[in-house]
Amino acid sequence: MTTESGAIGLVETQRAVLFDEASPLVLSSGRELSPVEVAYETYGTLSAERDNVVVICHALTGDANAAGHHGDPDRRGWWDNIVGPGRPVDTDRFFVVCPNLLGGCQGTTGPSSIDPRTGKAYGLRFPAITVRDLVTVHRKLLSHLGVERPLAVLGGSLGGMQALQWALDFPSEVQGAALVCSTARLTAQNIAFSAVAREAIMRDPDFNGGDFYGEEKGPALGLALARMTAHITYLSEEAMRQKFGRRRQDPAAPGANPDEPESDFDVDFEVESYLRHQGSTFLDRFDANTYLYFSRMMDRFDPFSEPEVFEHLKDLKTKFLLVSFDSDWRFDSNHSRDIQRQLARAGIPVSFREIESPWGHDSFLLEIPDYHRTVAAFFDNLWRERQS
Amino acid sequence: MTTESGAIGLVETQRAVLFDEASPLVLSSGRELSPVEVAYETYGTLSAERDNVVVICHALTGDANAAGHHGDPDRRGWWDNIVGPGRPVDTDRFFVVCPNLLGGCQGTTGPSSIDPRTGKAYGLRFPAITVRDLVTVHRKLLSHLGVERPLAVLGGSLGGMQALQWALDFPSEVQGAALVCSTARLTAQNIAFSAVAREAIMRDPDFNGGDFYGEEKGPALGLALARMTAHITYLSEEAMRQKFGRRRQDPAAPGANPDEPESDFDVDFEVESYLRHQGSTFLDRFDANTYLYFSRMMDRFDPFSEPEVFEHLKDLKTKFLLVSFDSDWRFDSNHSRDIQRQLARAGIPVSFREIESPWGHDSFLLEIPDYHRTVAAFFDNLWRERQS
Repeated sequence: MTTESGAIGLVETQRAVLFDEASPLVLSSGRELSPVEVAYETYGTLSAERDNVVVICHALTGDANAAGHHGDPDRRGWWDNIVGPGRPVDTDRFFVVCPNLLGGCQGTTGPSSIDPRTGKAYGLRFPAITVRDLVTVHRKLLSHLGVERPLAVLGGSLGGMQALQWALDFPSEVQGAALVCSTARLTAQNIAFSAVAREAIMRDPDFNGGDFYGEEKGPALGLALARMTAHITYLSEEAMRQKFGRRRQDPAAPGANPDEPESDFDVDFEVESYLRHQGSTFLDRFDANTYLYFSRMMDRFDPFSEPEVFEHLKDLKTKFLLVSFDSDWRFDSNHSRDIQRQLARAGIPVSFREIESPWGHDSFLLEIPDYHRTVAAFFDNLWRERQS
Repeated sequence: MTTESGAIGLVETQRAVLFDEASPLVLSSGRELSPVEVAYETYGTLSAERDNVVVICHALTGDANAAGHHGDPDRRGWWDNIVGPGRPVDTDRFFVVCPNLLGGCQGTTGPSSIDPRTGKAYGLRFPAITVRDLVTVHRKLLSHLGVERPLAVLGGSLGGMQALQWALDFPSEVQGAALVCSTARLTAQNIAFSAVAREAIMRDPDFNGGDFYGEEKGPALGLALARMTAHITYLSEEAMRQKFGRRRQDPAAPGANPDEPESDFDVDFEVESYLRHQGSTFLDRFDANTYLYFSRMMDRFDPFSEPEVFEHLKDLKTKFLLVSFDSDWRFDSNHSRDIQRQLARAGIPVSFREIESPWGHDSFLLEIPDYHRTVAAFFDNLWRERQS
C-alpha cells in the first residue's frame, strides 16, 4: 500500500489518571506514587485486533506532541516528519501513542505537580525515578487504552533507552524496538556534561532547594546555562561550522564603545546569539527539577549491568533496529555498537545502520532521506509480518 | 652535549613596570594603558651574546611559574617537565623567560589591577586586548632584559597563538616558533563553549558588572561552572573513560535517604566529584574578569584573515614546529593543519607532528615521550644552528 505522504492536522493532548491512592504506582525503588496523571497524544486508528500500536518515547526535553499541531500549523510536533499518513511511521497503518514521560513537566505528573499530601508542588521531594519506571507507566497507559502489547516502541536518545528497557524487561511483549542515536550506558564524558548542567541549576541562588514554584523567580539562569551547554553537544562541530562559522552578529557593535565595556562580552558571533536564544526559549517550556530528575536517571541507566537481564535475553523475541549518525558525538555510534554487541552475545539479531549526516545528535529530529528510509523499511517489515 | 635531566629548584617571580604614564602601552585598538607591570620568571643563564632566549607563552589559565617551585618542591611549575637542565627546553643552554600575560591575574596588570585614575580596580573598564597586545608586552619585557630578539617562542593552546602572532608580525625576529595544540582560528563550537563560560560568569548575581573586588562575594558560581565546562573539553572522552569510567563516588550515599532528596543530585559518580573539585580550586587562583577578556581575545584571534599578514609572510624566516594530539578535541589536529596550509601557501616550511596520546588537549602539559622528543629535537636544531 502507498499513501501520498501527508501531514497530521489539529491534535489534542489527552490526559488520564493511571494510578491513584487505591492503586499507586510502585516505583523500582519500592516507593509509591499517586496520583499519576499522564498526558498523551494518539495518531491513526486502533485496529479491531488492537495489534497496530506504536509507542513513541520522547527524549530529555520532548513532550506528548510528536505530530500534528495544536492550532498553529507552523508549530508542529517534534517528530512530525516521521509520523503521519505515508510517513515512515505510517498513521494509515499504525495507531501511534506518544505520552509525556513520568517526571516530566508537560502534563504528566512530575516534580512540578502538586503533592496531594502537602498541597504543595513536590519539588525535590518527588521520588527518584528510573527508565524502568517510565516503562511501567507507558504499559499502564496502553492497558488504559485497551491495548495488551505494542507492536513496536520507537525513540531517539532517552527515547531509545525506554524502548530498550521495555524489550529487555518484557521479552515477549514488543515485536519491534527502534532505537535512534541511543545508548545503553552513558560515558564519563556524558555524565560530566549532565553534572555541569545540574550544578548550574542547583547553584542558582533562586533554586531554593527545588521549591521555586509560585515564587517570583526560579533558577532561570541555571536552566538556561544547562540548555546552552547541552545544545553544544546536540550539534556536531561541522554543523556549527556550516550554520554559523565565524560570522559576526553585528560587526559594528561589540567593543566599539568604550563607554559600554560590557558590550564587549555580549553577543558578538552569531553562534552566541543562537545559544542565548536556545537558552531563553527553553525557560518557557521546561522545569528545572525535571531536568535534574531526567539527567540523573540517564546517568544511572545501565541495563546490561543487571545479571538478570541476561536471563531475559534467552526469551527475547524483539526485532531491533539501531540507528546512529556518524557526526553524533553525544551518543556516538559506539553506543549503538555496544548495544548490538550485548544483544549479539545472546544471539539476538540486530539491524544496525550508521547514517551519514553532518548534523550531530539532532539528526534524529531531521528529515534525512537515508534515515527515514531505514525507519520506514523497519516498520514496513513489522507491518507485513503482522499481516502474515 | 648531554646533561642528566634534572629539575629546577626554588625560583622567584620577578616584576617590572614596563609602561608608565610617560610611555604608555599603545594597544592595537589605539587605546593607551599605563602603568603596565609584568610578573615573570627566568630559568637558565643569558649568554654573553644574548642570543639564547626562549620565551614561553602561557595558556588561558597559566601563569609565570612555568618551572621550578616557590618553596614546596611538590608544587612545581605547570611546564616543569619540559623546562630544566637536560629537558626538552634545556636550561643548560637556553635562557628561558615566562611572563604572566597582559590582562592576567597572577601579577601582571589586568582587570583586577588598580586603575590609578580612579583608585579602584579596572573591572570591565579594562580595555579590550588582542593577542597582538600580548606580544607587544612580551617584546617590551625582552628589551627590559637587554635582549633584542628571542631565539624561540614556545606555547601551548593560547600560548601557541602568541608565538604565531609574534612570528607573523615580526617576520625576521623569531628564529623558531613552537606551537603545541594551538590554533589560528577558533571554530563555532570553540566559540560556543567560550560563550557559555562567559554567560555563566556574567549572569552570576554576584558579578555586579565586573565590580566584585573587595566585595564579600564574587561570581564564584559562574567561574566554577566556566571552569567545569572547559575542563570537559580539555580531556578526551577516552581519557575520562580511563580515569573515571562509571565508577561511583560512594555507592551507598546518593538517593539512599529519602529525607535528604537533594543528595540524589549531589555527587554520585567519581567524574562529578573531580569536576566539582576542578571548579572550586580554580576560584582560589583565577579572576573571573580575566576569564572574560582572555576568552574573548581567543574568539577573535584570526591572523590569517588580515590581508597584510601575507605581505609579511614573504619575509618570514621563522622555523615552525606544530604539534597536535590525536585525541585533542578542543583544538584538534585540523587546527594545526590549517596553520600549516596557510604558511605553506607562502612557501614557509613547517614541521608538523600529530602525536598519539589518549589524554586530549591536556596532553600538552604531560610528559609524553614522543611529544617531548619532538620538542627536544626542534630545540636541538635551533641550538646547533645558533652555534654554526
